[in-house]
Amino acid sequence: MPDSIRVTYVVQAPADRIAERAEALMLEQAVELPRAIAARDPWVAEHMIGAVEDVRPAGRDLHRVTIAHPIATAGGDPAQLLNLLFGNASLQPEVVLDDVVLPPSAFDWLPGPRAGIAGLRELAGVAGRPLLATALKPMGLRPARLAALAGTFARAGLDLIKDDHGLADHAFCPFEARVEACLRAIDDAERETGRRALYVPNLIGAPDRVMRQLAFAREAGARVAMVSPMVTGLPFLCQLAALPDGLPLMAHPAFGGVLRAAPPVLLGKLFRWFGADAVIFPHVGGRFSYDADTCRAIAEALRAEHARIRPSLPAPAGGIRVERMGELLDFYGPDCVLLVGGSLYAADDGLFERTRALVERVTRAAAAEPVS
Amino acid sequence: MPDSIRVTYVVQAPADRIAERAEALMLEQAVELPRAIAARDPWVAEHMIGAVEDVRPAGRDLHRVTIAHPIATAGGDPAQLLNLLFGNASLQPEVVLDDVVLPPSAFDWLPGPRAGIAGLRELAGVAGRPLLATALKPMGLRPARLAALAGTFARAGLDLIKDDHGLADHAFCPFEARVEACLRAIDDAERETGRRALYVPNLIGAPDRVMRQLAFAREAGARVAMVSPMVTGLPFLCQLAALPDGLPLMAHPAFGGVLRAAPPVLLGKLFRWFGADAVIFPHVGGRFSYDADTCRAIAEALRAEHARIRPSLPAPAGGIRVERMGELLDFYGPDCVLLVGGSLYAADDGLFERTRALVERVTRAAAAEPVS
Repeated sequence: MPDSIRVTYVVQAPADRIAERAEALMLEQAVELPRAIAARDPWVAEHMIGAVEDVRPAGRDLHRVTIAHPIATAGGDPAQLLNLLFGNASLQPEVVLDDVVLPPSAFDWLPGPRAGIAGLRELAGVAGRPLLATALKPMGLRPARLAALAGTFARAGLDLIKDDHGLADHAFCPFEARVEACLRAIDDAERETGRRALYVPNLIGAPDRVMRQLAFAREAGARVAMVSPMVTGLPFLCQLAALPDGLPLMAHPAFGGVLRAAPPVLLGKLFRWFGADAVIFPHVGGRFSYDADTCRAIAEALRAEHARIRPSLPAPAGGIRVERMGELLDFYGPDCVLLVGGSLYAADDGLFERTRALVERVTRAAAAEPVS
Repeated sequence: MPDSIRVTYVVQAPADRIAERAEALMLEQAVELPRAIAARDPWVAEHMIGAVEDVRPAGRDLHRVTIAHPIATAGGDPAQLLNLLFGNASLQPEVVLDDVVLPPSAFDWLPGPRAGIAGLRELAGVAGRPLLATALKPMGLRPARLAALAGTFARAGLDLIKDDHGLADHAFCPFEARVEACLRAIDDAERETGRRALYVPNLIGAPDRVMRQLAFAREAGARVAMVSPMVTGLPFLCQLAALPDGLPLMAHPAFGGVLRAAPPVLLGKLFRWFGADAVIFPHVGGRFSYDADTCRAIAEALRAEHARIRPSLPAPAGGIRVERMGELLDFYGPDCVLLVGGSLYAADDGLFERTRALVERVTRAAAAEPVS
């Protein structure tokens, strides 16, 4: 089947039962009936039932199973694609979603990133080095206080200044007031330095609320926004990415707890395919537990060449200390966002100086090792 | 703190490190900064930073940790509530979301079920026994074929006839044509039997698409609809449940296994709080692996008395054979939806007779053991 969705699972089953288990998994995800019943209709048998294409050992009682579903089963709908990949199977603890390969025609209805790496670089005015980012925090500060932080970070030369993902539309810090104050602070810094940072407001809520926030932020002058797709819904990311009057989006991994889906599939492939221009994920050695191979695989999936959609910027984060910047530059190369939060805040009164030192260090390192 | 969100995690950490780990978890989920930095602002220290209220052993290197967050941190937003409960922590494999208790004031902005058990019973015209349901399948059948099945099931006396959750808006079976055909078939059956079944269309897609499907279905005469909240986004469920012109909703658990969360919290509590009138979940002994305690806990959470919101109907499913109906009646009692799919289809030409026998059996069993 040339125009197929190919999905690979790691399945726990003994060797003498894996063929049967793989067949059941394929049927579960599409027709949800035993083959004998589903195939009573010849059109269903021919056009809806896929094939188990490959089964190979992957450890003790583990097998890597690749299933091909006809592209028509996805119905041109990102939500139905999720059903097909990991709808019911997500409830079966012996199944881990391991990889997905889509045919080119899937990108007739999957938008991919609006701006991609080149677009974000152009917005930020940064070439040849990673974009430097931080988060405004903690939750609880009033708009004027967050704006003062944004101004300091902007004057110190950061490229992206995003809301913490926990900054919602709190009574003590309403979305609109925060966005206006932070954008004003960025304006002021630009007048002072001649260089414009990008303030990235956090869109959060049910879709109607997020749509209002997006419209407000765009109208107020924001050029990039952030969303947590696993909180607000992955198909909604597609809707946002395809809006004629949308914004490029950073995606935060909150609620993405991926016990049984390999992080590179969810954060690397699905987030990019569904429209994230940059994807935040926990880098090895911080407060989270992804290992180096996982981080590398996420970055590779985000930046891989693709005939139909733009590449996305990996944004490693999650407790990265300023002192580790050299290591991250080596690990990710120039095409990434380096997101440093708490480690800058540790400086307190020295926030400007510590941020400035980070910017200079990364700029110098990039100049010393020019990259294509 | 009386007006607190109380969230319990099972955390893997040795006894001599659990106090530190619990404190870090509490900070991670709200202010996302070390205490010393976040508490520089006295208002943040007093109003945003919660407390670790309880830590108790829960197995070898396991502890059950209860954290109280001030309700204000949720910002009156269901999406931000998810962040607070399991945003970043979902990415930490040593943390499992185990339980959540909300203060009454959270239900100022969490809608709960639109119709609840009483409302669904009234719509279905069924008292004193479980509602009987099936799913239209397989994906691939044209609207006329699905409608013929709906008509057969309705004449045989089923109460709820839902789309399979994989029935999207496929080119070979467009949503609108399917809804119209199935509702016509239900009308015809009603004229024949004098009794009206409820056809439950599956709403699926990005939010804009789902909103159009909902409006169409309601206008066409559907009285209940289905959605997969983990596919389309949990906060979107709240939006749908709070719509002035919405419909009662059955919630399907597809894609719900992505999270390291105890199923009773996700499917029992969050699904109900966010607006599901009935929640489908895999019953023990079918194609999935929930055990009896998990199923019982889900059902209890859905039906528990609550001062602010309606109870929801548990809808055990996932490969329940007709022969197991007696066991399920004993297990769940009358307040549930018994969802039988493939086991009815096994009958092929005898579909009407097999369905009719199921209805009679459940009706007789309920009459023999009248329940309050």
